[in-house]
Amino acid sequence: MSERLKGNILVTGANRGIGLALVQQLGETPGEEGHIYACCRDPQGPGAQALRDLSTQCPGKITVVKLDVSDVDSISSAVQTVSRIIGAGGLNLLINNAAINRPETPAPLSACGKTDMMEAYETNVVGPFLLVKMLLPLLQKAAAMDDTVKGNTMSCSRSAIVNISTLISSIEKCPETFPIAQMYPYRTSKAALNMLTRCLAEDFRRHNILVAAVHPGWVRTAMGGEEASLTPQESVGGVLSILTSLSNKHSGMLLDWQGNTIPW
Amino acid sequence: MSERLKGNILVTGANRGIGLALVQQLGETPGEEGHIYACCRDPQGPGAQALRDLSTQCPGKITVVKLDVSDVDSISSAVQTVSRIIGAGGLNLLINNAAINRPETPAPLSACGKTDMMEAYETNVVGPFLLVKMLLPLLQKAAAMDDTVKGNTMSCSRSAIVNISTLISSIEKCPETFPIAQMYPYRTSKAALNMLTRCLAEDFRRHNILVAAVHPGWVRTAMGGEEASLTPQESVGGVLSILTSLSNKHSGMLLDWQGNTIPW
Ligand SMILES: NC(=O)c1ccc[n+]([C@@H]2O[C@H](COP(=O)([O-])OP(=O)(O)OC[C@H]3O[C@@H](n4cnc5c(N)ncnc54)[C@H](OP(=O)(O)O)[C@@H]3O)[C@@H](O)[C@H]2O)c1
Ligand SMILES: NC(=O)c1ccc[n+]([C@@H]2O[C@H](COP(=O)([O-])OP(=O)(O)OC[C@H]3O[C@@H](n4cnc5c(N)ncnc54)[C@H](OP(=O)(O)O)[C@@H]3O)[C@@H](O)[C@H]2O)c1
Repeated sequence: MSERLKGNILVTGANRGIGLALVQQLGETPGEEGHIYACCRDPQGPGAQALRDLSTQCPGKITVVKLDVSDVDSISSAVQTVSRIIGAGGLNLLINNAAINRPETPAPLSACGKTDMMEAYETNVVGPFLLVKMLLPLLQKAAAMDDTVKGNTMSCSRSAIVNISTLISSIEKCPETFPIAQMYPYRTSKAALNMLTRCLAEDFRRHNILVAAVHPGWVRTAMGGEEASLTPQESVGGVLSILTSLSNKHSGMLLDWQGNTIPW
Repeated sequence: MSERLKGNILVTGANRGIGLALVQQLGETPGEEGHIYACCRDPQGPGAQALRDLSTQCPGKITVVKLDVSDVDSISSAVQTVSRIIGAGGLNLLINNAAINRPETPAPLSACGKTDMMEAYETNVVGPFLLVKMLLPLLQKAAAMDDTVKGNTMSCSRSAIVNISTLISSIEKCPETFPIAQMYPYRTSKAALNMLTRCLAEDFRRHNILVAAVHPGWVRTAMGGEEASLTPQESVGGVLSILTSLSNKHSGMLLDWQGNTIPW
């Protein structure tokens, strides 16, 4: 990263995988330049130990917030908590990272049922959708600060929503990717997330809120598996460097961790 | 229509709108060349009067089948009923037409909640998904008949799945269409239906089952509204003429009622 992201940043699914690496690298920002709301389902549980340790290592920079994106009440409580802490400030960046990919890869048609389809949609699409709706006042507040200086210039340091998507969300590229990863529930949900991204980009341009989708590469996490080509640190290094470079022309696009455009 | 579709054809949401017009025009096929399984939620109710009348006017051509695509048990019963009637035959064409678009157009973000998102997905994506899974043996049977003559040539008369999609499912065209029709739940669900279409096309090529998505135009139905440019008859005339012309190269594509390709 040449430059660093500043301001109030919320990350979902922050207790492991790419989410944890995002919080770690964002936490390296020196001084008082930003605050991270690291959200996870079970902040007190064993699965959040690494996140709790990180929060201790970066005093005053990371607030761990309980959030299950498949639960409306949990989203609502998390938004209230964050609003209370932020006070008069705004939210500069929301990273919708939490997601599920079930059943086991490659998840052929025969292995996928209604529950897999509905739950993938609930977590991967409806969660981000509701979080955006409820955080909109805070994102608008951030976008409106210093707006005489910033005009219509959008950026991830001003006010933005980044949805973590995937290469295999690309309908265009399906013939290339389908043979190795069928994953019906995940694929259909991520294509819908791309549509959500582009709708929000159109909708929020008038508020100067940037909205983009990012493919983090194939990453060694529980979801990516051990054969994946990137460490979470490498992926997140690329993703954050791309995020710092986003401007008006990127709103409504799907980019990979190296900045290449992926077709819908 | 220059040529006509033949064989066993199943249409969902057949009691009104585009679905009813599909059954009407398919029912005009002379003689014993085809049989239509016209599915609807409430075959005995007042909303299916026109379909019951149509079935009486075309003796022996139309079987009305009870089917609620949002209900797994209903899908399973409908598939059993159809299988029993078809007997040793196969299903040549499945048209996934039933869909919902709620709340009221334009359905801005502020008007849409979790239930709208989940229900649109359940009906518009998971319904077709499950119907395809359960009808696969019948579609495969149709595809395998006369396969020494037909080789790898796919068509809607041999074995095909047609998902009724929409122009506003296009993520690419979102900047053009969003200002007039925000419809978050509907749009995200139809983008996912496009992904499902392309996945199934890749998956079923080995079975010689063609899979395509079709935009019927803007049509005067309860969903399309009174300002729409096409009558259901005009739209369906175009759609059926396109379906008769589909071949291998169209599998996995999104076409409009006049045969133009729509980008994802
Ligand atoms: N890894 C890859 O190769 C790859 C490739 C392309 C895209 N992606 C995308 O990158 C993002 C992160 O993936 P990852 O590889 O880091 O996955 P991961 O290791 O499986 O981690 C998933 C994270 O999401 C959280 N999560 C799941 N359901 C949740 C819910 N209902 N509420 C709150 N949090 C929930 C998990 O929390 P729990 O610990 O509570 O389960 C966990 O923190 C996802 O959007 C994924 O689709 C990954
Ligand atoms: N009209 C347009 O301008 C337009 C444009 C683009 C695409 N389309 C697409 O064209 C297709 C037909 O639309 P339309 O205009 O004919 O809509 P419509 O007049 O509102 O009819 C919808 C049909 O779907 C049925 N349906 C809804 N939920 C169902 C469920 N759970 N199970 C079974 N059937 C269900 C309805 O049955 P009930 O009577 O029981 O409710 C009705 O038969 C849809 O896929 C739509 O997205 C329409």
